[in-house]
Amino acid sequence: MNEIKVFCPATIANVSCGFDVLGLALETVGDEMLIRKVDKPGIHITKVDGQELPLETNKNVAGVAGLALLEKSNYHGGFEIEIYKKIKPGSGIGSSAASSTGAVWGMNELLNNPFSKLELVKFAMQGEKLASNVAHADNVAPAIYGGFTLARSYNPLDIVPIPTPNALFATVIHPQIEVKTSDSRKILKTTISLENGIKQWGNLGGLVAGLFREDYELIGRSLEDHIIEPLRSILIPGFHQVKSAAIENGALGCGISGSGPSIFALSKGEENAQRVALNIAKVYDEIGVDYEVHISKISASGVKQLK
Amino acid sequence: MNEIKVFCPATIANVSCGFDVLGLALETVGDEMLIRKVDKPGIHITKVDGQELPLETNKNVAGVAGLALLEKSNYHGGFEIEIYKKIKPGSGIGSSAASSTGAVWGMNELLNNPFSKLELVKFAMQGEKLASNVAHADNVAPAIYGGFTLARSYNPLDIVPIPTPNALFATVIHPQIEVKTSDSRKILKTTISLENGIKQWGNLGGLVAGLFREDYELIGRSLEDHIIEPLRSILIPGFHQVKSAAIENGALGCGISGSGPSIFALSKGEENAQRVALNIAKVYDEIGVDYEVHISKISASGVKQLK
Repeated sequence: MNEIKVFCPATIANVSCGFDVLGLALETVGDEMLIRKVDKPGIHITKVDGQELPLETNKNVAGVAGLALLEKSNYHGGFEIEIYKKIKPGSGIGSSAASSTGAVWGMNELLNNPFSKLELVKFAMQGEKLASNVAHADNVAPAIYGGFTLARSYNPLDIVPIPTPNALFATVIHPQIEVKTSDSRKILKTTISLENGIKQWGNLGGLVAGLFREDYELIGRSLEDHIIEPLRSILIPGFHQVKSAAIENGALGCGISGSGPSIFALSKGEENAQRVALNIAKVYDEIGVDYEVHISKISASGVKQLK
Repeated sequence: MNEIKVFCPATIANVSCGFDVLGLALETVGDEMLIRKVDKPGIHITKVDGQELPLETNKNVAGVAGLALLEKSNYHGGFEIEIYKKIKPGSGIGSSAASSTGAVWGMNELLNNPFSKLELVKFAMQGEKLASNVAHADNVAPAIYGGFTLARSYNPLDIVPIPTPNALFATVIHPQIEVKTSDSRKILKTTISLENGIKQWGNLGGLVAGLFREDYELIGRSLEDHIIEPLRSILIPGFHQVKSAAIENGALGCGISGSGPSIFALSKGEENAQRVALNIAKVYDEIGVDYEVHISKISASGVKQLK
């Protein structure tokens, strides 16, 4: 195999109670990439479709992630990459992670899988570092492993895949406003109250248990965030109305996707996810903010080959 | 059935990364109680063996927990309770919780189980309130449900039972020193760093996943506490030497049991738990501190009837 077409999933990081550790991959929202083995050494981004992104290897997250892999491999050729962006950068659903992940996963396939999933996460994290100055794993890990993943520790990196109940769907609404990741980091405080910390780890434990048990009610009860959401939601117009509309229409929970501005809701079943989509869209219709809505099953597989 | 003999398990609260939310029950360490239905209304503590504890109903945790149950029941008679204490008060392995739990569980059995486990936890929490001014659930919940339990939320109370791998054993060493619960509370700070918070909820999620998966290595990696242990361990002489000895001898993890002074270690298998016991005991032999050591399987059932 000299060429592979790759689906690179959008991802939701944090997932309410899992700030900086939890993430999940979507099944039907994501980018596409074409990756080709070539003789010329190095990574060559030959096309970016759908977004204005740099073609220079060391300025493109797919390029940087790919170089990290190449450096550890004993392959002496190179790769051409075409990127078909469908996820908007800055939307909060892992646009850079999708590109980094797609590149390293596809290259690994073409090299007959010399690297483990954990190693691929480490390579893709280099793309995240380029995008936001921080080598986060909470988007790239679910993109590579699929389903929910927990980044238990960074030093050493420890990724724990968490099973995903089959009827779990996400609705994502992306208000067309810009929230800079740097601003959404700056608004956070470096200390939190012990009281809120206890609530957070209680909820995280409850969410993990709910996912293992396929207990949708427990999942719903655990989707609370007393620490980050009260601060970051200030930057997202209409957040509280959207959240209320989601919950009133049967969503298990609702929160900020990554560092925003996208808002996600989780539902049991596609029908409910659609009902939630319809009703949260109304909120932005009324406020007069443009938006995009996505509905997707949670992906069990993450990044994958497209036929 | 007019009389029941009850085994009331000792419990380990917090379990490193689960401060104020996690607890586990021991299988072979605990008190015994004899509970008898009598015509005379109210709770009558007729005997306390093994410790000096008040017989007055409203000064005894078993009495107070029992009264909370009686108040919600439509039984018009009363109960006599004999308590055979084997767990030392102030040891940090849930002495008061054992008495509160045994009382309400035994009474519920004699009344043909009108109350759910969750309701029994609420009654038993009234005993905890008498003992330490705070109605904690992290000892009484595992005592009632067995295994590991997560107190996800207090308002409303939400207890999540977590499965317990079959080969999990605890070693507990109780240095014979007094650490007042009020002092071990006072030494805590009301704020924590966000950075340590993230580590804590990452570990709690990892521990819950490890227990579901029976992944002993993941359980071990997750048994870390960057928040409470560094503060409270100051109050426990030899803590760091004991912890090092436990880990060096193969324990999965080691930390403070409840608010101390007992120290617990978890092991895969009884043989390792015994080896850990032998080696942590040596530490206190050398320091010259008296101690008691317990080795027990984690209990799957919690409080139970003795034949």
